[in-house]
Amino acid sequence: MKIKAINPNTTEEMTQNIQEVANKYTSPETDVVGVSPDHGPESIESYYDDYLSIPGVLEEILKSEREEDSAYDAYINACWGDPGINACREITSKPVVGIGEASMYIANMLGANFSVVTVLPRARNLTEGTVKKSGLEDKCQSVRCTDLTVVETEHDREATVSALLEASKDAIREDNAEVICLGCAGMGGLDRELEAELPVPVIDSTAAASVLTESLVRLGKTTSKVMTYKQPESKRIEGYEQLYQF
Amino acid sequence: MKIKAINPNTTEEMTQNIQEVANKYTSPETDVVGVSPDHGPESIESYYDDYLSIPGVLEEILKSEREEDSAYDAYINACWGDPGINACREITSKPVVGIGEASMYIANMLGANFSVVTVLPRARNLTEGTVKKSGLEDKCQSVRCTDLTVVETEHDREATVSALLEASKDAIREDNAEVICLGCAGMGGLDRELEAELPVPVIDSTAAASVLTESLVRLGKTTSKVMTYKQPESKRIEGYEQLYQF
Amino acid sequence: MKIKAINPNTTEEMTQNIQEVANKYTSPETDVVGVSPDHGPESIESYYDDYLSIPGVLEEILKSEREEDSAYDAYINACWGDPGINACREITSKPVVGIGEASMYIANMLGANFSVVTVLPRARNLTEGTVKKSGLEDKCQSVRCTDLTVVETEHDREATVSALLEASKDAIREDNAEVICLGCAGMGGLDRELEAELPVPVIDSTAAASVLTESLVRLGKTTSKVMTYKQPESKRIEGYEQLYQF
Amino acid sequence: MKIKAINPNTTEEMTQNIQEVANKYTSPETDVVGVSPDHGPESIESYYDDYLSIPGVLEEILKSEREEDSAYDAYINACWGDPGINACREITSKPVVGIGEASMYIANMLGANFSVVTVLPRARNLTEGTVKKSGLEDKCQSVRCTDLTVVETEHDREATVSALLEASKDAIREDNAEVICLGCAGMGGLDRELEAELPVPVIDSTAAASVLTESLVRLGKTTSKVMTYKQPESKRIEGYEQLYQF
Amino acid sequence: MKIKAINPNTTEEMTQNIQEVANKYTSPETDVVGVSPDHGPESIESYYDDYLSIPGVLEEILKSEREEDSAYDAYINACWGDPGINACREITSKPVVGIGEASMYIANMLGANFSVVTVLPRARNLTEGTVKKSGLEDKCQSVRCTDLTVVETEHDREATVSALLEASKDAIREDNAEVICLGCAGMGGLDRELEAELPVPVIDSTAAASVLTESLVRLGKTTSKVMTYKQPESKRIEGYEQLYQF
Amino acid sequence: MKIKAINPNTTEEMTQNIQEVANKYTSPETDVVGVSPDHGPESIESYYDDYLSIPGVLEEILKSEREEDSAYDAYINACWGDPGINACREITSKPVVGIGEASMYIANMLGANFSVVTVLPRARNLTEGTVKKSGLEDKCQSVRCTDLTVVETEHDREATVSALLEASKDAIREDNAEVICLGCAGMGGLDRELEAELPVPVIDSTAAASVLTESLVRLGKTTSKVMTYKQPESKRIEGYEQLYQF
Repeated sequence: MKIKAINPNTTEEMTQNIQEVANKYTSPETDVVGVSPDHGPESIESYYDDYLSIPGVLEEILKSEREEDSAYDAYINACWGDPGINACREITSKPVVGIGEASMYIANMLGANFSVVTVLPRARNLTEGTVKKSGLEDKCQSVRCTDLTVVETEHDREATVSALLEASKDAIREDNAEVICLGCAGMGGLDRELEAELPVPVIDSTAAASVLTESLVRLGKTTSKVMTYKQPESKRIEGYEQLYQF
Repeated sequence: MKIKAINPNTTEEMTQNIQEVANKYTSPETDVVGVSPDHGPESIESYYDDYLSIPGVLEEILKSEREEDSAYDAYINACWGDPGINACREITSKPVVGIGEASMYIANMLGANFSVVTVLPRARNLTEGTVKKSGLEDKCQSVRCTDLTVVETEHDREATVSALLEASKDAIREDNAEVICLGCAGMGGLDRELEAELPVPVIDSTAAASVLTESLVRLGKTTSKVMTYKQPESKRIEGYEQLYQF
Repeated sequence: MKIKAINPNTTEEMTQNIQEVANKYTSPETDVVGVSPDHGPESIESYYDDYLSIPGVLEEILKSEREEDSAYDAYINACWGDPGINACREITSKPVVGIGEASMYIANMLGANFSVVTVLPRARNLTEGTVKKSGLEDKCQSVRCTDLTVVETEHDREATVSALLEASKDAIREDNAEVICLGCAGMGGLDRELEAELPVPVIDSTAAASVLTESLVRLGKTTSKVMTYKQPESKRIEGYEQLYQF
Repeated sequence: MKIKAINPNTTEEMTQNIQEVANKYTSPETDVVGVSPDHGPESIESYYDDYLSIPGVLEEILKSEREEDSAYDAYINACWGDPGINACREITSKPVVGIGEASMYIANMLGANFSVVTVLPRARNLTEGTVKKSGLEDKCQSVRCTDLTVVETEHDREATVSALLEASKDAIREDNAEVICLGCAGMGGLDRELEAELPVPVIDSTAAASVLTESLVRLGKTTSKVMTYKQPESKRIEGYEQLYQF
Repeated sequence: MKIKAINPNTTEEMTQNIQEVANKYTSPETDVVGVSPDHGPESIESYYDDYLSIPGVLEEILKSEREEDSAYDAYINACWGDPGINACREITSKPVVGIGEASMYIANMLGANFSVVTVLPRARNLTEGTVKKSGLEDKCQSVRCTDLTVVETEHDREATVSALLEASKDAIREDNAEVICLGCAGMGGLDRELEAELPVPVIDSTAAASVLTESLVRLGKTTSKVMTYKQPESKRIEGYEQLYQF
Repeated sequence: MKIKAINPNTTEEMTQNIQEVANKYTSPETDVVGVSPDHGPESIESYYDDYLSIPGVLEEILKSEREEDSAYDAYINACWGDPGINACREITSKPVVGIGEASMYIANMLGANFSVVTVLPRARNLTEGTVKKSGLEDKCQSVRCTDLTVVETEHDREATVSALLEASKDAIREDNAEVICLGCAGMGGLDRELEAELPVPVIDSTAAASVLTESLVRLGKTTSKVMTYKQPESKRIEGYEQLYQF
């Protein structure tokens, strides 16, 4: 099985991190390939970043889908906001899994509720929006932000762990959280370190998505094409290269 | 007062329609200028179309904002899905109004509830998402789709009126709708014709947005920059021209 | 255009304030006339006050509607609880706008969410009820009360500003509010003073209603008479004067 | 124990019906006295009727409360819309029970859900509002209206039974209703007749309120005066007689 | 009238308490008999305890129902979690009332909202689940837990009162609670003592259930057997004695 | 990896079916062992059946957990109502997955929404309750019942397929369902046959649970023991054998 894990931003270390984490949890015969679009923001913190990353994410899927014999069985959308995931599901019938939704389903099977700890306060609204999109807002006790930028989560692991510990402890004590979802792909690989200090399970969202994507492929299921996720209507998309045209 | 009404798709007739409708309802001293990005889809029916239209919408705002002395006092996002409206509010402090949200606020002041009549069935999920974003899902009795494409609403007015009448009558009779919102900018100018045949008010969404935008400017209010809609963090956005960089 | 702004209480200074604020934001050719019923409470703080103000509000509309050639194009219900607004919409087809709902729609276009700051703690439940009636409870972060009576908001401006600043700062810091709605007509005209000290837009609810009422008239829309807001059935209303009989 | 059952409208037969039904289900030592205000509408079908009935309802409570040695232990608000019930609870510490809420609590203990069958379609929105006020909207499958006016439910029992049977059967078959609440005090005494033809329990709302009111008195509980239902602030209420002044 | 009040746990003192409290509030001619199954947990604090108590509760109903001439007119399920109440309603057509739901209905008629104070923090999720089952989560401000075990509430009344006072004061001050529901049958009889120290009504849940059960019998209503609460299908239930077989 | 799949009912063919389906989708090195308690109902259609199955389900987990060196890495609760799943999570720290919740998470990644098709109409309320427990009610368009008993789904495959096809088509056409969840373990293995006739993905709930359980083990995650799912307090559980005592 071959899975393409698309990092919606252009920070290469994060793409590497995603690939490593994903391959760590999937079966030996599954190969997860991390990629990053060549256009888009270097990190996603605002709605502006989020939307400008989407054409690149779509392009990564289109490139694989337009090949005669696509190498990939499924796609991972590896940013917690699951940017453009509805559109991803329109342009391929292969499963597409967002790391945000995946981490919440895993959390929901391990505890009575969960909180999300994430980056800058400005991302709270975007993060709450992802929770709502998945339908699980009643299970989410809180979104706890830190002062971390996305890039810092990747580059300054010590500060990241320290800030996430504090936010998680607050979520457990004040919001009664029973599981913690790490709300950014840059936090990949930190779950064990945090669990060593916290009394609750901590979900590495990329890891969660990797096993759920493999699960969908095992089940042999493909995206519903009956209505919302039908292929886009054929029409001229000005200013986008041929690859984007249906 | 000068307002830029951005048609997120590239269909010029629709841009003309938007400009005409908006100027019809605003004060004589207000000038609404309709524009359309030079890149993006010719119509928005899928999530794919919606997301691919956003960079163009943002560009239209950025172009005006980057001028020394911007001519515009406010912006209208003239597609019922209000594509990328959160990001629009991040990149300017001037008011940005979506025609989807505007039509629902107007409807909510005229009746106990409303329904939305719109284009292809595939757009139902996207349209319901716009209702949820505004927060008004409890007031929305139903989203009623037709077999109309977006372009047909502009080009085949007779078929459009006929399909909208049928959908509206169903909404009134079966869903107890008391006001009808026209769920596509292409339907601009059809409200009177429909009201002649229906027992309820019909909201032309572009008209609704034009008067609400003027209202925000009159009040002298600007977008909240305290948190969610702060200016995006300065970072490299690969593959996007200089205009997009902060 | 001529708009009747009905202050549901009998405090004349508040009626003056409402008229001044409303005329400040509407077009020069629009004339907003503030009126107050000659019966009803001097302020509205309890449900008791709220309900006892309604016959007077209705009378002000009936008086204008029963004239051969009504001078008014629309009505404003100028108490944040929008007392009796559903009944107002039954007895005229002209637009009726409540200052509570109006302030929330304006707030919703300027920020990701809002809080309401208002008078005595006992009014919290009534105020939350107004938020629910509008349908926007998911966007309302909190209702923050003060120790102010309604009459004090009009008479002791310094204490009012000071109490509202404190409540607003709490809403921003603890409830993540991004816009503040002033939850009482007595606070009319204080938005600028508060904005000078706060990092968020502050909505003067009377101002908000005045521009939205003007907007509805410009659009040429009237209240839906298909069902809920039909004219009341003809029947004997004992103990109410002839004006009230249908 | 002595309970005052206030019929908010001025139709004397309905007041008689309410008194009879209530006394049928309470203990022999409990005396329920039906009264009707001398001002207000002859029936309540619109929001207009609803609001104009409230001063009369409040007066009936104030008259008893202002007596040296009030004869009454509790009050029933005997219209399904529970008009002004929040204000009723402010002006007495004795229990006040609405027949709308009472019928829903009883229904909720007898079935997995319920529907309300009621009068004219225009009352749907008002009736749904009562369901929401009680907090039980998730348990309410539907509000089913008929062509009955309130007065007809009292005067034309045969047509009333026939219309209610049809509406109830629709609710059971199409909305999966498992209990039926009779949504008007005028339908008092029809529950047995309807149960003879229907496979579900039918709740006579006046009967439900009478036993719940008796229950509250037995428990020795009084209305919470800590905040929302505190006595109204002392202030001038113009145009209302002395009785209404605090 | 004869009512069987089933204490789902095996702690005899609690059964006695339940019987005493219930008889204190019902009519003299009503006899409430407290019983406890001979199998099940000595207290209910976890989901594990809750589920293991249910076969015993069902047995107590089946024993009475299987008698030729059942002595009982109705049943009370006397644990705040209302364990297995849906199944109870399937195996008898006589009314079955849970003390959890009963206390919330009573609270809802006395205040604008309520909070529940209860035992160990681990029971929060279970308690919130009972609130949701009743449908009243929008009226419940909070569930406030203490360090009390169920058995302590019965055996150490002083510590119980002290802990409940503190939790109630927190609920009133921080959560704006206007009524307090005592969330455990072991707290029966403490309402007066707590009311002496608190500014709000306090609901003894067993007392609430006793008067509501009597009310249902007075109304002559029985459980809806149309669908959800139909008698269980006849089938082999292995390992359960004959009494359990249908 | 070794997983114990507990069929909460005593029908051996269903246990076999569950084991076969689960092993079909998990990795070759994973062994799923289907078991059935020796006490409990032969099928689960009512709340009565549901609750009486729980002690047997718990016993199957306790038996494995009490062994020195438990052979199992995780448990599947293989009835769509996920009976007693909260209690299961209290008595082991190993992952426990319900087939109801699992099928909904899988569905949610494949379509914009889903419907559940299931057995007898009486199970609708129970099934809707499972949807609510998972938190996903906003994504569930409908629960569509058939005339099938649980045992028939296992024994009469032809009638089962025919009834499920009809219910699914209704859900797609009338409720806009985009994915179908099979709401009973007895329907295991029918997904392909149904997909051949339907335009949407069909989820075999046992299959869904098997891959998600394997996923949780791969991630190395265990149930949160911080609060709700802590081990039950040590206390006497009368009438239950030693195995059940903590």
